[in-house]
Amino acid sequence: MTTPYEYAEKNHDQFIAELIDFLKIESVSTDKTRYDQVNQAADWLKDHCVNIGLENVEIMPTDGHPIVYADWLHAGDDKPTVLIYGHYDVQPADDPNDPSMLAEWVSPPFDPAIRDGHLYARGATDDKGQTFIHLKAFDSQMKATGTFPVNIKFMIEGEEEIGSPNLLPYLKENLDRLACDVVVVSDSDVLAPDKPSMTYALRGLVYTEIHVKGGDSDLHSGSFGGAVHNPVQALAEILAQLHDANGTITVPGFYDDVVPLTDEERELLAKIPKTEAEFMAEGKLSALWGEKEYTVLERVGARPTLEINGMIGGFTGDGQKTVIGKSAMAKVSCRLVANQDPDKIFDLLKRHITNITPDSITSEVKRLGAHADPVLVPIDNATVKVASEAYEAVFGTQPYFIRSGGSIPVVGFYQTMLNVPVLLMGFGLPDDNLHAPNEKFTLVMFERGVQTMLHFYNNIETAF
Amino acid sequence: MTTPYEYAEKNHDQFIAELIDFLKIESVSTDKTRYDQVNQAADWLKDHCVNIGLENVEIMPTDGHPIVYADWLHAGDDKPTVLIYGHYDVQPADDPNDPSMLAEWVSPPFDPAIRDGHLYARGATDDKGQTFIHLKAFDSQMKATGTFPVNIKFMIEGEEEIGSPNLLPYLKENLDRLACDVVVVSDSDVLAPDKPSMTYALRGLVYTEIHVKGGDSDLHSGSFGGAVHNPVQALAEILAQLHDANGTITVPGFYDDVVPLTDEERELLAKIPKTEAEFMAEGKLSALWGEKEYTVLERVGARPTLEINGMIGGFTGDGQKTVIGKSAMAKVSCRLVANQDPDKIFDLLKRHITNITPDSITSEVKRLGAHADPVLVPIDNATVKVASEAYEAVFGTQPYFIRSGGSIPVVGFYQTMLNVPVLLMGFGLPDDNLHAPNEKFTLVMFERGVQTMLHFYNNIETAF
Repeated sequence: MTTPYEYAEKNHDQFIAELIDFLKIESVSTDKTRYDQVNQAADWLKDHCVNIGLENVEIMPTDGHPIVYADWLHAGDDKPTVLIYGHYDVQPADDPNDPSMLAEWVSPPFDPAIRDGHLYARGATDDKGQTFIHLKAFDSQMKATGTFPVNIKFMIEGEEEIGSPNLLPYLKENLDRLACDVVVVSDSDVLAPDKPSMTYALRGLVYTEIHVKGGDSDLHSGSFGGAVHNPVQALAEILAQLHDANGTITVPGFYDDVVPLTDEERELLAKIPKTEAEFMAEGKLSALWGEKEYTVLERVGARPTLEINGMIGGFTGDGQKTVIGKSAMAKVSCRLVANQDPDKIFDLLKRHITNITPDSITSEVKRLGAHADPVLVPIDNATVKVASEAYEAVFGTQPYFIRSGGSIPVVGFYQTMLNVPVLLMGFGLPDDNLHAPNEKFTLVMFERGVQTMLHFYNNIETAF
Repeated sequence: MTTPYEYAEKNHDQFIAELIDFLKIESVSTDKTRYDQVNQAADWLKDHCVNIGLENVEIMPTDGHPIVYADWLHAGDDKPTVLIYGHYDVQPADDPNDPSMLAEWVSPPFDPAIRDGHLYARGATDDKGQTFIHLKAFDSQMKATGTFPVNIKFMIEGEEEIGSPNLLPYLKENLDRLACDVVVVSDSDVLAPDKPSMTYALRGLVYTEIHVKGGDSDLHSGSFGGAVHNPVQALAEILAQLHDANGTITVPGFYDDVVPLTDEERELLAKIPKTEAEFMAEGKLSALWGEKEYTVLERVGARPTLEINGMIGGFTGDGQKTVIGKSAMAKVSCRLVANQDPDKIFDLLKRHITNITPDSITSEVKRLGAHADPVLVPIDNATVKVASEAYEAVFGTQPYFIRSGGSIPVVGFYQTMLNVPVLLMGFGLPDDNLHAPNEKFTLVMFERGVQTMLHFYNNIETAF
């Protein structure tokens, strides 16, 4: 008789072939010209859920991209219910203003390729590949045993990469349908293939655009240069004032609600076996930067940021144009930590930009995307113990507990609205090139992911 | 018998119809996809020169766009020779990064339209229309009298809007062919239709790109934000340091060679009947800016500038992308005044950028375009008197003498290489929207331009 673990092992190649089909769909949620492909990815998921024996499979419309729901609820009322969250949308693979970005892909982003044990494609890890781990764990258990040890629900959305703007209303309307005992989210990474880890903190996010405007027209720099405040220069001057020389953010009140790191927590974070050199190698960095009173992992995991994600103004084509542009724009986002409130931070930033805008120009701060609260997950919960043992069974060593610098808005929503533990069980690696050219998923991590989740599903009952 | 003045008056509509044909050719010199159209404009000019009786008409190749040469040298050895300079290339009408710019044109930039006595098209004033004034003055004189009072040479280039990179070698190789007694350039404006003016100073230009680079890849702002110096932020920080709060440029040594304004010159400039409100209305400005110890006209005409013509970095498309871009770029140009040297200023700027670049990133300063010296033309030359009387005869009032903030590289070259007076006889108006959407030429200014030049050609002999 074949165990679920053996079934998963034997069918690894088939699983990857299926994942490759999924990755070929260009479900870039931020790209208005690819709405059809985003819907196509939802359709593909629906068909796959049906094929592996999930029930009540449904593509649920939202005001944006739809949510795919599926469940299997025949374990019995006395068994716990696990809710799996994932997303089928992906980041853009190119940048209309930087054609070189697409050229950096060794193989095309939507034509998945396997090289040296890695599967390269946009979305390979984030999050199609990690979502697929759970579908194949369910599939393996069902194929091998004909049943599943717990009740399970899947909720896979299509707007994570644009800030999940329609998820909160969906959650509010479907609280009964989504009721569960524990939520599992696989949209994060471990430290290394031999150093498993679980993430217990996430940063929140608030995303803005700053628009600066001078007069009503582009101007000839000969006719007006020297007597008018160039909006591009004014924007640079505003942006340059948002950090001090230490890298600390200068927006008044910005740090007021930050929960300070305790000495105990700093010791725990210091044990994480990642050197500054390793951190730099992961990001191909030539230098570090930031608040000197915090370690690099503290800066990324436990400190908020203010980041200029993009900036444009004036003439940026080939050659020279002696113009004074009439306006300029920057995309500025803040990663937040507990207990900062995105709404309050937006207000503080907006007020500060207004205050430091000189009379010679006008500025406007717009908010993009949705609310994403920072998260801290209690690490003494019984479900965390089962998850930790599942990692240990497959990886042969206990996981580290780390703080992630990223944001997953839904985790905050689940914490608040479903009032259950949310486990962040990631299987990516730090060098997976998320949001960058040559995103990949290491195949052995996919395999271990399926095995780890099988352990988890077969033991989670003990936590309740 | 018809006089040249009468001939020009009667044939005005025909002249404008011909100019419209010329303006339809999309001779955007900075646009590599429009090389054919730039050549087409040169061909059109060549044919037109032949048709109006100019001789030795030739399209002379350069390493870039060609130069159109033509002459008529039958006035006699005892008559002076006038060299006319103009350019047939134009600024871009759109901006690949700002689709709204093209949308601002009321009529398409290369489909000339007449509205309320103005001819709207890219290049209408700068410089196809003003170049055409001289061709039609020659044409009118020849048609009416069968001869021309002086020897005349035309040299019309196709790279003025990209800094005339190939003009200097051409001048060096053709000094004999271009030998003359006075040069006339019509690529500037007058104060108003009833306030003629002659420009006696031009600013020089040096154009650069500043490239800032962080690590080797775009980074996820969640995974790396807070521990790496964002190159877009670093560029903003560098750019913000290039002016002090007064608008004065902070590059060490930048002002060392600036010839200070004399009290007498400041008095002369103060007489120019242009209020700050008028200056603001021309540029559709909502505020003024710049060095408080100088008037607005002094800032534009007699003070050097450092202008950020464009800036780009990170993600600037629709929606949100939580990325830390790997690089950022700004186009920075300086308008220079006598006796600043563009080469020296480039070296000073490059050294300063290098000095203020933090260790956390790298920067590179590249030079674009060619050398453009600042210019001061002596206003006590006899040729200037003839030009001034020509304006007075047509406009009914003496011209003001002003400093232009713009740059015409060739004027500096002529001064240095041909060693003759260079007269800047402009017929544009300050609200002609040069380098911006809805460029226009006011038809009455074209008509007066032809008449003024006829007066000039018929009297310039007296200056020698």
